[in-house]
Amino acid sequence: MIPAQAYTELITRVKEASLLGSCAGVLGWDERTYMPKNASEFRGEQMGLLARMSHEMFTSPRIGELLAHVEGTPVVIDPESAHAVNVREIRRGYNRQIKLPKELVEELARVTIRAQGAWQEARAKNDFPAFQPWLEKIVALKREESQAVGYEKHPYDALLDEYEPGASAEQISRVFAEFRRDLVPLIAAIAQSSRKPNSEILHREYDVEKQKAFVREAASAIGFDFDGGRLDITTHPFCSGIGPGDCRITTRFNPKFFNESFFGTLHEAGHGIYEQNLNASHYGTPAGSACSLGIHESQSRLWENQVGRGRPFWQHFFPKAQAVFPESLKDTSFDDWYFAINEVKPSFIRVEADEATYNLHIILRFELEQALLTGDLSPGDVPGAWDEKFEQSFGLKVPDAAQGCLQDIHWSMGGIGYFPTYTLGNLYAAQFMEQAKSDLHGLEDDFRHGEFGRLKTWLNEKIHLLGQTYRPEVLCQRITGKPLTHQPLMAYLRAKYGEVYAV
Amino acid sequence: MIPAQAYTELITRVKEASLLGSCAGVLGWDERTYMPKNASEFRGEQMGLLARMSHEMFTSPRIGELLAHVEGTPVVIDPESAHAVNVREIRRGYNRQIKLPKELVEELARVTIRAQGAWQEARAKNDFPAFQPWLEKIVALKREESQAVGYEKHPYDALLDEYEPGASAEQISRVFAEFRRDLVPLIAAIAQSSRKPNSEILHREYDVEKQKAFVREAASAIGFDFDGGRLDITTHPFCSGIGPGDCRITTRFNPKFFNESFFGTLHEAGHGIYEQNLNASHYGTPAGSACSLGIHESQSRLWENQVGRGRPFWQHFFPKAQAVFPESLKDTSFDDWYFAINEVKPSFIRVEADEATYNLHIILRFELEQALLTGDLSPGDVPGAWDEKFEQSFGLKVPDAAQGCLQDIHWSMGGIGYFPTYTLGNLYAAQFMEQAKSDLHGLEDDFRHGEFGRLKTWLNEKIHLLGQTYRPEVLCQRITGKPLTHQPLMAYLRAKYGEVYAV
Repeated sequence: MIPAQAYTELITRVKEASLLGSCAGVLGWDERTYMPKNASEFRGEQMGLLARMSHEMFTSPRIGELLAHVEGTPVVIDPESAHAVNVREIRRGYNRQIKLPKELVEELARVTIRAQGAWQEARAKNDFPAFQPWLEKIVALKREESQAVGYEKHPYDALLDEYEPGASAEQISRVFAEFRRDLVPLIAAIAQSSRKPNSEILHREYDVEKQKAFVREAASAIGFDFDGGRLDITTHPFCSGIGPGDCRITTRFNPKFFNESFFGTLHEAGHGIYEQNLNASHYGTPAGSACSLGIHESQSRLWENQVGRGRPFWQHFFPKAQAVFPESLKDTSFDDWYFAINEVKPSFIRVEADEATYNLHIILRFELEQALLTGDLSPGDVPGAWDEKFEQSFGLKVPDAAQGCLQDIHWSMGGIGYFPTYTLGNLYAAQFMEQAKSDLHGLEDDFRHGEFGRLKTWLNEKIHLLGQTYRPEVLCQRITGKPLTHQPLMAYLRAKYGEVYAV
Repeated sequence: MIPAQAYTELITRVKEASLLGSCAGVLGWDERTYMPKNASEFRGEQMGLLARMSHEMFTSPRIGELLAHVEGTPVVIDPESAHAVNVREIRRGYNRQIKLPKELVEELARVTIRAQGAWQEARAKNDFPAFQPWLEKIVALKREESQAVGYEKHPYDALLDEYEPGASAEQISRVFAEFRRDLVPLIAAIAQSSRKPNSEILHREYDVEKQKAFVREAASAIGFDFDGGRLDITTHPFCSGIGPGDCRITTRFNPKFFNESFFGTLHEAGHGIYEQNLNASHYGTPAGSACSLGIHESQSRLWENQVGRGRPFWQHFFPKAQAVFPESLKDTSFDDWYFAINEVKPSFIRVEADEATYNLHIILRFELEQALLTGDLSPGDVPGAWDEKFEQSFGLKVPDAAQGCLQDIHWSMGGIGYFPTYTLGNLYAAQFMEQAKSDLHGLEDDFRHGEFGRLKTWLNEKIHLLGQTYRPEVLCQRITGKPLTHQPLMAYLRAKYGEVYAV
């Protein structure tokens, strides 16, 4: 078989499997937005069939044959070409899949579906022992998965690889440790500051219909394209990139809390802008897919925080907010508003945390996950370990498991290895933004005028259009000239909070 | 192979193909309701893949082998058992599909997609010659299809079989001719009546938000289950039965015309009630599928017209309508309202026609379609033939092709053979309703009290739960003790219009 022919057949097959997977994307979106409630059992059957069929297509032995025909040939001689990128990353995914015994995959699917139900109930009843057997099963299965996939140094690496290709526990631990060392004193200084924002501002009346129009305007302004996307309402906001011309984000509206829909929408729109600006001609292949979850998260955090919680952004949007919500904001000063949306306050729940303390939540989970995988921590000891670490990091006593180790859905879904991508996202976002400001002079003046196009184009060129051409670490090095470090995020946090908290 | 095993594998395969097809049902619904506009090209690829894959599953040679293993064995000895019904109807569909050359199927798909675009433009520009070459292609391909499928008496029968299994042009022609013979004088008498309704009532202000709540209440009252369904807005209303617990209907709202959303919703809800009450344990097989398009249409017409345009229905709903739309209806009498919603008036456009003249639109199309298929009428002569027949039936000169032979999308979609199912639906609806009134004493009293449950249950038992156990003609004979005739519909129309028009 001629290598070029093998490549063509390989891509045709992979694109078709992706296309079938994208149908599940529509069904998944529908399930969370408009599906009638009695349809859930049947929807489970539809989703199961699509998952099984696209999995079979991705892992067909023919894919392995075609990869073997094309690897090491001139077709992939330029490592930065779409051909080479696709072959490299299809191989990575293929190897990962075929190493996993079918029984393990099916057992994980069965256990995690039931574990999610058990977790939901356990959290509601604040009953860790009810969840413990499920966590034990899941940790055991994920350890098996890690062994099956294989790793060089740490069993965590095999799981991490699914979300953050090429990353290692060792490298992340090093960056997180340095970050933590600098972050904890900053948070402590803020806690001791006599300045406190008036956060009541954010809990006034914010009419939901007006919020809808306002968040839509903001999402549109930063570059989310509503001709190729939608914004709907769900309890748990998400972004679903279905395919070219079709990316859907969701948010939730709280008539008594401004932040929930506004920053939630900017966050999802950031993910959406990434999806909408992938290279459509490579749709369904690695060259047209997002780099990693960490890089994906960098895009949501960049728009939500670096841009959307910034002073220049609000110099444009605050007068608009006052016009839309005059009763609630007419007597509020810009500085009071800006301070309120940038409050730092240690709290128990990760998803409600501010930009600074958020990362301590992640580091805690990352450490526990590694210990669970090595066996240094047994699932039954998680609540104790959690509470101890939490008090060390936050200086707060965890009142109960619902506000402690039972708060997140991730472990019940088998998502061990996922959490660090959130803080990686924050770190990458700061490092990219520092570079963008240096590359694009007067960028903050753009924001003050409600102009975000230059930044969006920069991100398109530097990140979105490249797909999986480079692994995250290499991408970061190429864009910023440096490996990932905590310095840009620390500098950003110090500058912002130094000003508002006078620390 | 043991026949029982063959049957099990057959059903597993057919259910899986249906399940995959149901995913396309969700995507099709989404395409017409919420899909972002830039997604259409990609959606075409998704739909194409699902159609191809489910077609391959239905027509796999293995299906033929399994059918051969089970046919004529004790597994199917009881012809009314789900086993026998499934084998009989899977065989029918399978034979039809494998008789069609692949090239013909692909050519039809290609041509009809382009022809729909050409039709839309031709209708907008009132330009039949622009559409003529497409009609020629489609008629030629449908004649080929008819030859490939085969028929006993009339080439039309081969096409009809797709929509109305077991029906024949000869039998339909006989019923339609008798119907026409009695209907035309009734319509003429109405035209000469000095009584005219005040149809302006229907064109007053009907606030869209209030309409939404009102049509939802009505759809719910007749038995459409919103826990297992939805009502959304589209330009062209439809009902999509996706699967157990998931049936979606749509309507459109006109703030200056009451009928559009109200009767449209009752119509689609009638289809929806059929879909929602199929036997879910036979989902994905003929025993759990609707009998035919004619029977399906009987359910929509029954609720829309037989029930929804009836005096007892409005004795319950008119006071409610007055309460919801007081400005428009407070001074309107019940009799004026009832007359207005039952106006008979010959007009050019089928979809805007009343209950009586509607059927003349269908009979005209049915006659032309047969002549096109035999070759007695060439596509280029359609406008002339249309206009001549129209004047004969309606006494009106067709002003242009857009209001004549270009008005319907059906031919551009290749749907020759579909039209008669609309009038079959009207005929079946009347015949079923006559029987229901005889079986269920005091049924109209139920309606006067807003109770529709006894009728719905009767339809569930007599029709919905039976799936494809009986072909339409046999089903009708079993329910009513008579073959399909035009008498019940004529009796119904005479009684209603005799009263309001004093004819």
